[in-house]
Amino acid sequence: MEKIPVAILAATGIVGQRFVQLLDKHPWFQVMALTGSDRNIGLPYGEACRWVLPEPMPDWARNMDLKRSEPEEIKVPLIFSSLPAQAALEIEARFAQAGAIVCTNASAYRWEPDVPILLPEVNPEHVELIQFQRQQRGWKGGIATNANCTSTGMTIVLKALQDGFGLRRVFAVSLQALSGAGIPGVPSLDIADNVLPWISGEEEKVEREPRKILGKLRGQTIDQADFVISAQTNRVAVTDGHLVCLSIELGKRASIPEVSSVLSDFSIPEISRGLPLTPEPVIKLMEREDRPQPRLDRMIGSGMTTVVGRVRPDPIFDLRLVVLSHNTIRGAAGGSIYNAELINKVGMLG
Amino acid sequence: MEKIPVAILAATGIVGQRFVQLLDKHPWFQVMALTGSDRNIGLPYGEACRWVLPEPMPDWARNMDLKRSEPEEIKVPLIFSSLPAQAALEIEARFAQAGAIVCTNASAYRWEPDVPILLPEVNPEHVELIQFQRQQRGWKGGIATNANCTSTGMTIVLKALQDGFGLRRVFAVSLQALSGAGIPGVPSLDIADNVLPWISGEEEKVEREPRKILGKLRGQTIDQADFVISAQTNRVAVTDGHLVCLSIELGKRASIPEVSSVLSDFSIPEISRGLPLTPEPVIKLMEREDRPQPRLDRMIGSGMTTVVGRVRPDPIFDLRLVVLSHNTIRGAAGGSIYNAELINKVGMLG
Amino acid sequence: MEKIPVAILAATGIVGQRFVQLLDKHPWFQVMALTGSDRNIGLPYGEACRWVLPEPMPDWARNMDLKRSEPEEIKVPLIFSSLPAQAALEIEARFAQAGAIVCTNASAYRWEPDVPILLPEVNPEHVELIQFQRQQRGWKGGIATNANCTSTGMTIVLKALQDGFGLRRVFAVSLQALSGAGIPGVPSLDIADNVLPWISGEEEKVEREPRKILGKLRGQTIDQADFVISAQTNRVAVTDGHLVCLSIELGKRASIPEVSSVLSDFSIPEISRGLPLTPEPVIKLMEREDRPQPRLDRMIGSGMTTVVGRVRPDPIFDLRLVVLSHNTIRGAAGGSIYNAELINKVGMLG
Amino acid sequence: MEKIPVAILAATGIVGQRFVQLLDKHPWFQVMALTGSDRNIGLPYGEACRWVLPEPMPDWARNMDLKRSEPEEIKVPLIFSSLPAQAALEIEARFAQAGAIVCTNASAYRWEPDVPILLPEVNPEHVELIQFQRQQRGWKGGIATNANCTSTGMTIVLKALQDGFGLRRVFAVSLQALSGAGIPGVPSLDIADNVLPWISGEEEKVEREPRKILGKLRGQTIDQADFVISAQTNRVAVTDGHLVCLSIELGKRASIPEVSSVLSDFSIPEISRGLPLTPEPVIKLMEREDRPQPRLDRMIGSGMTTVVGRVRPDPIFDLRLVVLSHNTIRGAAGGSIYNAELINKVGMLG
Repeated sequence: MEKIPVAILAATGIVGQRFVQLLDKHPWFQVMALTGSDRNIGLPYGEACRWVLPEPMPDWARNMDLKRSEPEEIKVPLIFSSLPAQAALEIEARFAQAGAIVCTNASAYRWEPDVPILLPEVNPEHVELIQFQRQQRGWKGGIATNANCTSTGMTIVLKALQDGFGLRRVFAVSLQALSGAGIPGVPSLDIADNVLPWISGEEEKVEREPRKILGKLRGQTIDQADFVISAQTNRVAVTDGHLVCLSIELGKRASIPEVSSVLSDFSIPEISRGLPLTPEPVIKLMEREDRPQPRLDRMIGSGMTTVVGRVRPDPIFDLRLVVLSHNTIRGAAGGSIYNAELINKVGMLG
Repeated sequence: MEKIPVAILAATGIVGQRFVQLLDKHPWFQVMALTGSDRNIGLPYGEACRWVLPEPMPDWARNMDLKRSEPEEIKVPLIFSSLPAQAALEIEARFAQAGAIVCTNASAYRWEPDVPILLPEVNPEHVELIQFQRQQRGWKGGIATNANCTSTGMTIVLKALQDGFGLRRVFAVSLQALSGAGIPGVPSLDIADNVLPWISGEEEKVEREPRKILGKLRGQTIDQADFVISAQTNRVAVTDGHLVCLSIELGKRASIPEVSSVLSDFSIPEISRGLPLTPEPVIKLMEREDRPQPRLDRMIGSGMTTVVGRVRPDPIFDLRLVVLSHNTIRGAAGGSIYNAELINKVGMLG
Repeated sequence: MEKIPVAILAATGIVGQRFVQLLDKHPWFQVMALTGSDRNIGLPYGEACRWVLPEPMPDWARNMDLKRSEPEEIKVPLIFSSLPAQAALEIEARFAQAGAIVCTNASAYRWEPDVPILLPEVNPEHVELIQFQRQQRGWKGGIATNANCTSTGMTIVLKALQDGFGLRRVFAVSLQALSGAGIPGVPSLDIADNVLPWISGEEEKVEREPRKILGKLRGQTIDQADFVISAQTNRVAVTDGHLVCLSIELGKRASIPEVSSVLSDFSIPEISRGLPLTPEPVIKLMEREDRPQPRLDRMIGSGMTTVVGRVRPDPIFDLRLVVLSHNTIRGAAGGSIYNAELINKVGMLG
Repeated sequence: MEKIPVAILAATGIVGQRFVQLLDKHPWFQVMALTGSDRNIGLPYGEACRWVLPEPMPDWARNMDLKRSEPEEIKVPLIFSSLPAQAALEIEARFAQAGAIVCTNASAYRWEPDVPILLPEVNPEHVELIQFQRQQRGWKGGIATNANCTSTGMTIVLKALQDGFGLRRVFAVSLQALSGAGIPGVPSLDIADNVLPWISGEEEKVEREPRKILGKLRGQTIDQADFVISAQTNRVAVTDGHLVCLSIELGKRASIPEVSSVLSDFSIPEISRGLPLTPEPVIKLMEREDRPQPRLDRMIGSGMTTVVGRVRPDPIFDLRLVVLSHNTIRGAAGGSIYNAELINKVGMLG
C-alpha cells in the first residue's frame, strides 16, 4: 500500500516534535514536509529544532529542510497542525480551501459550529461536519480539531458515564504537566519548588469543550450536552501527563461497582476501532488507591490510554475519581493522528 | 517577666524542628526539655537530629540532651507535642493528668468531644472545653489540639464566609507539600517528575475537622457546623506550603466583591489579637490571577498568614478561590504555639 | 531453543525491578523464581513489590510468589542478585557453591582477587577468574560482579583512551540520579531544591574499581592498571542517569580530534559482540555542546550505550569530557545480564 | 546621617530584584530611581516587574516609576547595575563619565586593565584602580565590577589557601542554581528531571576571574596570580546557591587540619570589616560530611557567607573540598553593594 503524504505545520514546537515522533514508521502516513517559523525556513529540521523528547529524532526528519506554511508550497492531502491559535486561523483555512484535511491541535476553530472537536473514542459521527464545511465554506478539504489536552482524558471518562447514567454536574481540578505549555514555556524559576494555580485560558476550555464533544449532531449543528463543568487548573513540576480530580453528579444514582464496570467495560465506537493509534485499552481502571501517577502511568497504551483511579463515593455529588492522560500524546499529537486515521477510514481523505 | 518553661515532645521530627525554631527567642516561653525516640535518649539534640530547616538550629537546642517523654522527668506547665498519633494517645494524657497543658499537633484527641481543635482566629471560645476535661477526666492540665495542616488555612477562610453568608457545600482539592509527610516521609523517587493522588487518612480529616472547628460550643459539647465538605488530596513536589482549590456554596447569594470584602476585612476575635504569633494580616487577599504560589507566598506574615487568591464566580456553586497556608508553621508548630499563647492569655496555664 | 531458567534475588528493590523488566522476553533466559525479604515470602510479587518503573510490570512476574534466597529452594543454573552487600556475602557464596553462576550487582565480592568486576565491553577475559574460584573455593558455580553504577560508564570511556593513548591521572566529579540510592532511598525533602554533595562509600568505589577492571589478568590474579583517580560524588534531583565530568591526563599527547576518533571508533571485543544486550552503539559521541543530558540521552541504545560529550582540551591535564550512563540499566541490572550472556557464550554456564 | 541616593539599572531582572530587596532599609543607601527596558518606561515597578523572590517587594519600590538608564535623567552618586553585558558597555561608561560610581554585576568591564573585579574579603586594595580610570579615561566617577557568581565563593576560599600555602592548580566542577540564569532563564522542560552540562561562557569566566582578583596591584595594573584553573560548569534544578567541587594543588604541602585552620581562621582585611554587608562569618567551615547543601546552607550569614565542607585529602592534588555561595546575594547583588560600602568607606564616593 502506498502511504499518504502528509505535512506537519509548526514542527519544531513540542507538539510538532510529538507529531514527528509518532509519525515515524506510521503504517498509513508519510511525512513529506515540515514547516517552521520565518527565521528557520530553509534550515534542516535537525538544526532548527531544539528536540526535547527522550525518543531520538528520526533520521528522515533531521535532514528535512523547513518550509513555509503555505498551501502553494506544500501539496499534500493531509496536514497536521500545531500552529499557535492566531496563525492557525488563517493558515489552516487556506489549506482546507486548497483541498487538504487539516487535523489540528490549535484551538482556533474549535468553536466554529461546523468544525468538530473530534475524539474517535467519543464522537466519531461528528466527522460529518466536514461535509458541511465544504458546502458552507466552499472548502475542498476541511478541518478537524482535537480537544484541549486537559479536556481530552476527562471527556472520554465523561462519555462512559454519560452513556451509563447521564451527567449533571462536574467539578474538575487539574494538576498539569510542563509540556502542556510548549517551548520555552514555563520558566524553571517559576515552577521550581512551586505550583502555579492558574493557566491562561485553560479553565474556559475545560468547561466548554466536553459539552460540545458530548453533544448530539442534529442536522448541521451540534446540540451541546446538557451538563455543567466547573474547572480549576494548576501547573505542577511534572514533565508529561495531566492529572484531573473529578467530582461528578450523575443523571441517576449508581453504585461504585456499577460505575467501575461502566468505566472498565467502555468500548470504542465500532468505526474507531482497530486504527493504528486506537488506544488499547481505551480506559485503564487502576485499583491501587495511590494511582494513577503521571510518571508511572502516562505511557500506558503507548500514551493513548485514559487512565482512571480512585473511583469512590463523593459526599456531595455521586462519585469522585482521578483521570490521567498523556497531554502531548493522547491530548495533542496522538489525538490529531487518531482523528486523521478515522477521517481516512470513513473515506473523506483525498 | 519570667518566661514559662516548656518542653517539646518528639523534637527531632520536622514539626518538632519547627517548634524548636519558632520557640527560639519566644517572648513568653522558654524551652527547658526536648524529647526523642528511645534510641536517642541522652544524646545531644544537635547530634540526634537531622535538621532540615534552612534556618539554623539554635545553639541552646544543639547541646540539650534528649529526654524521655515522661511527665516524671519533665515537669513543666506547658508541653508542645508532635508525637505520632499512636504514642500521643497515652503520653499526652499522662502529661495532662500530671498538670500540664498539652498543645499538640497530633490527631489522637481531635475527635474527643471534650477536646478542642483550636484555631485562635476562629474558635477561641472552644478553649472552655479544657475545663470539662478537668471535670470529667480528673486532669489537672488539659489538651488542646490544632487542626490538620490542610484543614487549617481553609477553615480560616470558611470562618470568614460562614460569618458573612453562611455555608452549605464545599469542594476542596489540595496540592500538598512534602514537609507535610515528615521525615523521612515521601521517597524522592516517588515524587520526582510525579504527583501522588492520595495521602493516607488526609481526606477524612479535611472533611471532618472544619465542621468541628466551626461548630458552636453548647453546654459541654460542640454542635458541629452544618455544611458538607468533599475533599481530594494530592502530594506535589514542593518543600513547604499547602495549596487548596475550593468551590463553595454559600448560605445566601453574594457577589464576588462582597466575598472579597468579607475576606480582606476578616478580623481575629478580640481575645486572640496581639499575641506573639497572631498572624498579621490574618488573611492576605492577592489580586494577581496567578497567585498565591507556595514558593513566593508561604512566608507572608512569617508563615502564619492565610493567603487567598483567584476569588471568582463558580458555574455550579457560588464562588471559587485558592488558599495557601504554610503547613509546618500555621498548619502545625506555629498553630500549636498560638494556641498556647491564647490559653495563657485566658489564664488557664499554670 | 529452550531457555535457561534463572532467578532474581531481592527482586522487589529498584535494581531487582530492572532485572524483572529487562528479562521480560529475554531470548535466552527465563525467570523461574523471585526472592524477597523475610516478611514478604509467599506473597505474590505484584503485591509485595512497590513497582517504580514507568514500564509496566510483566504479567508473569505479578503472580509469582516470592521465595527465600536459598539454594535449596531455588535450583537454577543462573542467579541474578541485587542483594544488599552484607547479605550478598553469605548468600551468593552458597549459590556459587551449589553450582550456580551468580551475576551480581552487589559490591560484596568486587575486591576478592579471584572475582572479576566484569564489563564485557572492556575485560571479557577476566571471566577466566571464575575457573580459579572453582579451583580455590571448591565452588561448582561462580560469581561475576558488575561495577558500581558510576564507575561503569567512565570505565568504558577510560578503556578506549587507555588503548589509544595510555592513562595517567583522572579527576571525576559525578552528578548522580536518585534511582542509584534504591527504594526508599533519598527522602524527598533532602533533595527538593537541593544537591547532596556526598554519597556514602561511593568515592572509594569510583576511585578503585576502574583500575581493577582495566587491569591485566596475569596468572590467577589481576594486575591493577597503573593510573590514579580522584572522585567527588554528588546526588542530584534526576530520576535516572549518572553524569560524570572527567579531566584526564593521558599517557601520551593527543589532539582532540584524535581523542574523538578513538572514542567513536571504539569497538567491543569480538567475544562480547552480538549478544542480546550488547550496546549499540557502545559509545555515542554527541557533538552539541550542551549534551549529554540525563533526561534526553539516558535511553540511547536502550540504556546500554555509554554517551559522551563536550570532549575538549583541559588547561591542566590533556582533555575534559562528560559521560552519561543509565545507572540502573547499563550500570546495574543490564550490566549483570550482559555479563551472564557473555558467561553463557564462553560456555561456563551449566 | 543623611542617606546616599542610589539608583538600580535593570531593576526588574532577578539580580535587579535582589538589589531592591537588599537595599530595603540599608543604613547608608537610599534607592531614588529604578530603570527598566524601553517597553516598561513610566510603568510603576510593581506592575512592570514579575517579582520572583520569596521576600515581599518593598512598598517604596512598588510605586516607583521605571526610568530610562540615562545619566541625564538619573543624577545620583552611586549606581548599581545588573544590565546585560552588551548594554552595560556603553551605559555604565556614561554614568562613570558623568560622575557616578557604578557597582556592577555585568561582565562588560571585568577585563579592562584599569577596572577591578572587587571582592572586599580578598582584594580591597584593587579599589585604587578607580583612580587610574579617572586619570586615563577622564571619568569623574568610576566602575567596580564584582565577580561571576560561580567565581565568587571559590575565590574567597582560594584567597585563604593562597595566603596560607600558595596555589598551583585547581580543578573546579560546579553545580549551579537556576537563578544564575536570570528571568525567564532556563525553560522548565530543559531542567525537569535533568542536568545541563554546559553554561554559555561560564567556564571561561571561572578559569580567568580568580587569577585577576588574587593578582597583585603593581603600579597601574594587576599582575595576575600565577596558578591554573580548569572548570566544568553544570546547571542543576536548584533555585539558589552554587556548589563547586574543588581539587587543589597547593604551593607547599599542608595537612588537612592545617588547611581547615587556615579556612576557619581566615579574616577579612581590616578595611572591609564592619560594613553593613560584611559577611559574618566570612567562611563557615561545616563538619558533617554531607554539607554544605544549597537548600539548607545558602542563607548562612544572610547569604553573604562562603560555606565550605568536605575538606579532605586528594589522591592526585593536595586537597578536595566543596564550596557553596548564594549566587544572587554574595555572588551578585550583595557583592555589588558590599563593594559600594567599601568604596564609600575609603572616601571615593562623592
